Amino acid sequence: MSEAGLLRQVPNHEQAKALDVLTPKERASRLATEFAKTAVERDQAGGTPKAERNAIRESGLLSLMIPQSLGGLGQGWQPTLEIVREFARVDSSIAQVFGFQHLMLATVRLFGTEAQWKPWFRQTAVNNWFWGNALNPLDLRTSSSIEDGAREFHGKKSFCSGATDSDMLIASALDAETGKLLIAAIPTARKGITLHHDWDNIGQRQTDSGSADFEHVRVEADELLLDPGPLSTPFACLRPLIAQLIFSNIYLGIAQGALAEARQYTLRQSRVWSGSLASDIQAEPYTLLHYGEFWVGLEGARLLTNHAAELLDAAWNKAESLTLEERGELAIAVTAAKVATTKAGLDITHRMFEVTGARATTAALRLDRFWRNLRVYTLHDPVDFKLKELGDWALNQQYPTPSFYS
Amino acid sequence: MSEAGLLRQVPNHEQAKALDVLTPKERASRLATEFAKTAVERDQAGGTPKAERNAIRESGLLSLMIPQSLGGLGQGWQPTLEIVREFARVDSSIAQVFGFQHLMLATVRLFGTEAQWKPWFRQTAVNNWFWGNALNPLDLRTSSSIEDGAREFHGKKSFCSGATDSDMLIASALDAETGKLLIAAIPTARKGITLHHDWDNIGQRQTDSGSADFEHVRVEADELLLDPGPLSTPFACLRPLIAQLIFSNIYLGIAQGALAEARQYTLRQSRVWSGSLASDIQAEPYTLLHYGEFWVGLEGARLLTNHAAELLDAAWNKAESLTLEERGELAIAVTAAKVATTKAGLDITHRMFEVTGARATTAALRLDRFWRNLRVYTLHDPVDFKLKELGDWALNQQYPTPSFYS
Amino acid sequence: MSEAGLLRQVPNHEQAKALDVLTPKERASRLATEFAKTAVERDQAGGTPKAERNAIRESGLLSLMIPQSLGGLGQGWQPTLEIVREFARVDSSIAQVFGFQHLMLATVRLFGTEAQWKPWFRQTAVNNWFWGNALNPLDLRTSSSIEDGAREFHGKKSFCSGATDSDMLIASALDAETGKLLIAAIPTARKGITLHHDWDNIGQRQTDSGSADFEHVRVEADELLLDPGPLSTPFACLRPLIAQLIFSNIYLGIAQGALAEARQYTLRQSRVWSGSLASDIQAEPYTLLHYGEFWVGLEGARLLTNHAAELLDAAWNKAESLTLEERGELAIAVTAAKVATTKAGLDITHRMFEVTGARATTAALRLDRFWRNLRVYTLHDPVDFKLKELGDWALNQQYPTPSFYS
Amino acid sequence: MSEAGLLRQVPNHEQAKALDVLTPKERASRLATEFAKTAVERDQAGGTPKAERNAIRESGLLSLMIPQSLGGLGQGWQPTLEIVREFARVDSSIAQVFGFQHLMLATVRLFGTEAQWKPWFRQTAVNNWFWGNALNPLDLRTSSSIEDGAREFHGKKSFCSGATDSDMLIASALDAETGKLLIAAIPTARKGITLHHDWDNIGQRQTDSGSADFEHVRVEADELLLDPGPLSTPFACLRPLIAQLIFSNIYLGIAQGALAEARQYTLRQSRVWSGSLASDIQAEPYTLLHYGEFWVGLEGARLLTNHAAELLDAAWNKAESLTLEERGELAIAVTAAKVATTKAGLDITHRMFEVTGARATTAALRLDRFWRNLRVYTLHDPVDFKLKELGDWALNQQYPTPSFYS
Repeated sequence: MSEAGLLRQVPNHEQAKALDVLTPKERASRLATEFAKTAVERDQAGGTPKAERNAIRESGLLSLMIPQSLGGLGQGWQPTLEIVREFARVDSSIAQVFGFQHLMLATVRLFGTEAQWKPWFRQTAVNNWFWGNALNPLDLRTSSSIEDGAREFHGKKSFCSGATDSDMLIASALDAETGKLLIAAIPTARKGITLHHDWDNIGQRQTDSGSADFEHVRVEADELLLDPGPLSTPFACLRPLIAQLIFSNIYLGIAQGALAEARQYTLRQSRVWSGSLASDIQAEPYTLLHYGEFWVGLEGARLLTNHAAELLDAAWNKAESLTLEERGELAIAVTAAKVATTKAGLDITHRMFEVTGARATTAALRLDRFWRNLRVYTLHDPVDFKLKELGDWALNQQYPTPSFYS
Repeated sequence: MSEAGLLRQVPNHEQAKALDVLTPKERASRLATEFAKTAVERDQAGGTPKAERNAIRESGLLSLMIPQSLGGLGQGWQPTLEIVREFARVDSSIAQVFGFQHLMLATVRLFGTEAQWKPWFRQTAVNNWFWGNALNPLDLRTSSSIEDGAREFHGKKSFCSGATDSDMLIASALDAETGKLLIAAIPTARKGITLHHDWDNIGQRQTDSGSADFEHVRVEADELLLDPGPLSTPFACLRPLIAQLIFSNIYLGIAQGALAEARQYTLRQSRVWSGSLASDIQAEPYTLLHYGEFWVGLEGARLLTNHAAELLDAAWNKAESLTLEERGELAIAVTAAKVATTKAGLDITHRMFEVTGARATTAALRLDRFWRNLRVYTLHDPVDFKLKELGDWALNQQYPTPSFYS
Repeated sequence: MSEAGLLRQVPNHEQAKALDVLTPKERASRLATEFAKTAVERDQAGGTPKAERNAIRESGLLSLMIPQSLGGLGQGWQPTLEIVREFARVDSSIAQVFGFQHLMLATVRLFGTEAQWKPWFRQTAVNNWFWGNALNPLDLRTSSSIEDGAREFHGKKSFCSGATDSDMLIASALDAETGKLLIAAIPTARKGITLHHDWDNIGQRQTDSGSADFEHVRVEADELLLDPGPLSTPFACLRPLIAQLIFSNIYLGIAQGALAEARQYTLRQSRVWSGSLASDIQAEPYTLLHYGEFWVGLEGARLLTNHAAELLDAAWNKAESLTLEERGELAIAVTAAKVATTKAGLDITHRMFEVTGARATTAALRLDRFWRNLRVYTLHDPVDFKLKELGDWALNQQYPTPSFYS
Repeated sequence: MSEAGLLRQVPNHEQAKALDVLTPKERASRLATEFAKTAVERDQAGGTPKAERNAIRESGLLSLMIPQSLGGLGQGWQPTLEIVREFARVDSSIAQVFGFQHLMLATVRLFGTEAQWKPWFRQTAVNNWFWGNALNPLDLRTSSSIEDGAREFHGKKSFCSGATDSDMLIASALDAETGKLLIAAIPTARKGITLHHDWDNIGQRQTDSGSADFEHVRVEADELLLDPGPLSTPFACLRPLIAQLIFSNIYLGIAQGALAEARQYTLRQSRVWSGSLASDIQAEPYTLLHYGEFWVGLEGARLLTNHAAELLDAAWNKAESLTLEERGELAIAVTAAKVATTKAGLDITHRMFEVTGARATTAALRLDRFWRNLRVYTLHDPVDFKLKELGDWALNQQYPTPSFYS
């Protein structure tokens, strides 16, 4: 029986004790090893990776970035993003919902008051709450109004990653009166919320990024994130950068995973083509050229991603004292990481077959999942416009205007 | 009911009469329209496209390149390849088995004697025989020996595209005594042949390119293609070039199909990203840039492919008088077409999503099938070594050495 | 003494007789051979290639596309452009002024009346007139007004390629009253015209593309090209397409010349790098890969360019019956050729040093001139906007709007 | 009068005092500002930049990496390479000879005994000695033998960068008896050494990388670097990595300089092309796209280069305790930096004209010098084989075999 399976069987407190001796990184590595075993079949199946989500819950890693004073593991963004990346190497769907967990926590931290986020952080740590996403600024179909003295969210929403099987939701709606974007943190079980199991995509197949219905869902006043509110202060404007840097780490992880699998395949099964001067695939000039190109692209992307994470930790620690310029500098670093991981990752997942050969296309291996996952995920927002932002910086020394995508 | 369906219901001679009034190109267009309707679901299902194969049989197009004097449609390679390409736009699996039909016919024409290929051509035209492939020069597991005075083929074979549901097979084996490659044309129903339904791949999912077992399969003397035999004369050496040019036409067709679907999606559903100076996707600068790059890559590939087909028709008509130099010139043209269609096609099928946006990744559309199909098929033999051949020509004025891949 | 030198010494009628036995293509080849001998030193020197211009005059090739009925050589656009391309292989400055000769002749043919262009064609054939350019639609500094009953052109002009040492000029000015673009054909010796020898550029150094002053230059009524006038009918709108296709042929020629010189250098002087599996540069895998990439890029560009030239000849022969759609189809073909020759050419001239090695960078060879010439010339109008036009066609089925650049 | 000029006029001790108050970085910035003023004209002139070499001498920067205990400025490799990079932004020839200064000092440190390098370091610091290169492992024409009891170097040598106007030389010869590579440090003025002023190249025009003659040049025993000798210990094997990392920093500096000049040109002089949706070049979508691509390429290359420099400082400080594995890790980092700076730099210097437009090709600006300099210098050893080394690492976990290029 798998280790994750074993963990799930022992009583919670025993298991917690067993886990306590492991560093967060070690716990993540164990989980990743488990996830890898079923990643191929779960890519085919789609749907909700319930067992894996539970294993994450039990690992305690959902409170990775929650301060120790609030019961969490107290990690910074760098180790948190490293773990997102590690999951992405073997299963980018799980990496996405795990990354979103921390994006949702960051959202309440950045948009809400201490009186709001501290209790939520504490309860998350205690209960291993999984947070899901129902915030989609491009989907204007959910509106909010006051009915009988109580605020309601009502309408439809698409791309609700990680909402299924979540405990808490970050949801958005447009104020029917003012048109202003309202964001709330509410229990997923709240009456009126229906999550549809309608996510069926060519990639990221276990992210449950389907649609939701909000039927006159009541939202309490203290669940609304109004102070300072979305994208208000420079510090609050870190939210989209955290999102984009989570994406970058996942793109990078996918690429690293693809390269690792390609390498194993080449070493074990690839054959030298007739006409090569090499007698051995390990010395084949074109094969080595491809691997060299993969390496240098990935290594540059890795350093850019790490550099952005360093700046993020610094900015996060500055909290409300963060300036717009410091936020801008981070934005450029994050954007460069996003573009570089996109380009290097797509190149590797697209061309990895040229270093494995035709037989690696058997459906049994589903090696195309790396490309499908990355292809889908990198479309979140267009890379052309990321390049445009970098160009605006390079030419005009203009930082990106904060928005939900920049 | 679909037209193809209707055609399949009417008695053969009535239908033949109905088809007689259509040009081969018109018949192909009708079939392609039918194939398109179910291409997405059949990509998912995999397996043998029996109904579609029968519709091709009934269309008479299996004898497209068989001379009219032998009962065929008497078309040259240019129109034949155009039809392969047209099928590939909507269904590259069918295009592959249809292309292989003509490669198999070319094989008996090029490697055999007039006394052999003429009757086979005639019977193919009369009976709408579908020919399948069991010739794989890299798979050395089938050997041939003389047992009790009769020649037998015995052993396993992989990548037998189009063998399932075929009427005739081109099969290869190594002479157990001499090590020489023997090629034979035999009925698929011949005792001892087992075709396995074990093709499950990430792309080209309905080509039945699975494995086969030959259990002491008897091969008659007049079924062996010994005169002039494989890759013997310059004319016989056209065989791999025909194969490669069929591939190029399929690659091109896949790319054209991908571009056409991307275009429809962009026009109907894509939205301008915030930050664009355009108010309308049809005027969006980056979208137009991508389409422009797709166009110029594809147009160059198209001209190279057509140019090679012209040279092929000329070479084919020269028959035994073809010189090695003329064969070499054609080889360079075919190789350039192969590389250009590979590069342009992979670029389009990989990047088409950047002009459609994230929503186009829904599994309902399976737009990734273009990339999966092309990705798989372009690995048939490595493009690096095609470039090397072109380099050998450009630098050393050396034509490719004839082989089953060049 | 060089053959061109010899030709220049013999009396005109003798020489003409000698040349008469040569086809235009043979004459061009002889000239190209001569030009090649001094191309390196003339690239360094810059200025006007007077001896070479005279040799072209004496060759009769200035009337290459003038109908035989008017004393010319009666060639179509395809052979004319082939000769432009052949010159470009060895000297792209000369190719440019030679190409402009035919663009200027096309300008009077397309924008003027038969009563205008026939005599000019005839005189060009008789006197071997060289035509230069003083038409620059982006330079608005020359205006035209009627002074004392006579029309004058007055003002400055930049980028007057081939004006120095020309016999006739195509000049443009803006009508001071209406703002309309006026184009005239006038003798270069006309009073008031000063051509400055101020062209000093990193490439295309002998095109004399410097500036000019028009000081109250008188322009006669029958020198103005008003009927049908610039960019009026679909046929008149061929002018920019001819310009762009001349450019494409020059880009292609530069790339072919670069590849030819790279090849000679590799074969004669390049050495295998330590660590290569090859013992001989002719078998070096990476070297062959580069050459293969060069070849396939160039071959696609060549076919696109030839295809556009075929369409141009057809459009030219349709004359006033040419439709906007036929013009549009040609525009797309020309634009694709322009983009493909730009991309393939820049790639080769930029990377050719990777197949020659470090020693090929000696100033004695000036191998950088291919890149410098192409880099400069391909900036004539931005390739990004050519791709945009192709995108507008691919996505919206919209032909380019006729202008002086499209 | 320029500051550098002023500095050269004041007496040495006054000037030294004035300089003493400046940090090394400030001194370098002042020099760079001066170099920039004449870089264009000196690129045209070629030859030895005597005034600039003297200004470097007077700046004290020639002893940048010499320990303070030996009279030097005591800087590590990171600040040293930063200054090499800063010079390269404005003048890559000077950057090369300045970089070679430190490579030569590293050579005596790595290949010689403490008794050798300490005095040389001290004298270099005292006398502002400039060191030049006459070590070329691929040029086998200089041999060494013992004549009349004294060792001599005799023969020719090519590519002797920075030898002209140097005070000391690192010279190599093959032992006539054993074939072993001998390396010595000798005064440039030593009898029998003739340096030819025959460097005339398309780029890096003021590096004096010409040829030399050694006519029975006497070499004393204590001038030979025999202990530990070339490429002996892991630490000694740092030499080629230092060389390659100096190159990377120069490539990066060239690219940064090119981008800076392109930017100034775009902002001041470029115009929006008709057909753009932007009214202002600063908002032009394609222009911004190019700048964005330049930025992300350069930023990745910059981080890779800095990362390698960090590892180099660590390895340098480990000295003889450096392991082969640590050396291997550094080699991979350096190689990745080399490839990334080569690719990003060539892309920028090649395409920068697409964001400036045609007028930026005037010879007055000589903007092509960035491409010419980088094109020449990146050919030092083939980037294909650097990619192969990275591939060997990525696929086989094999570090590069130490050599004079790896």
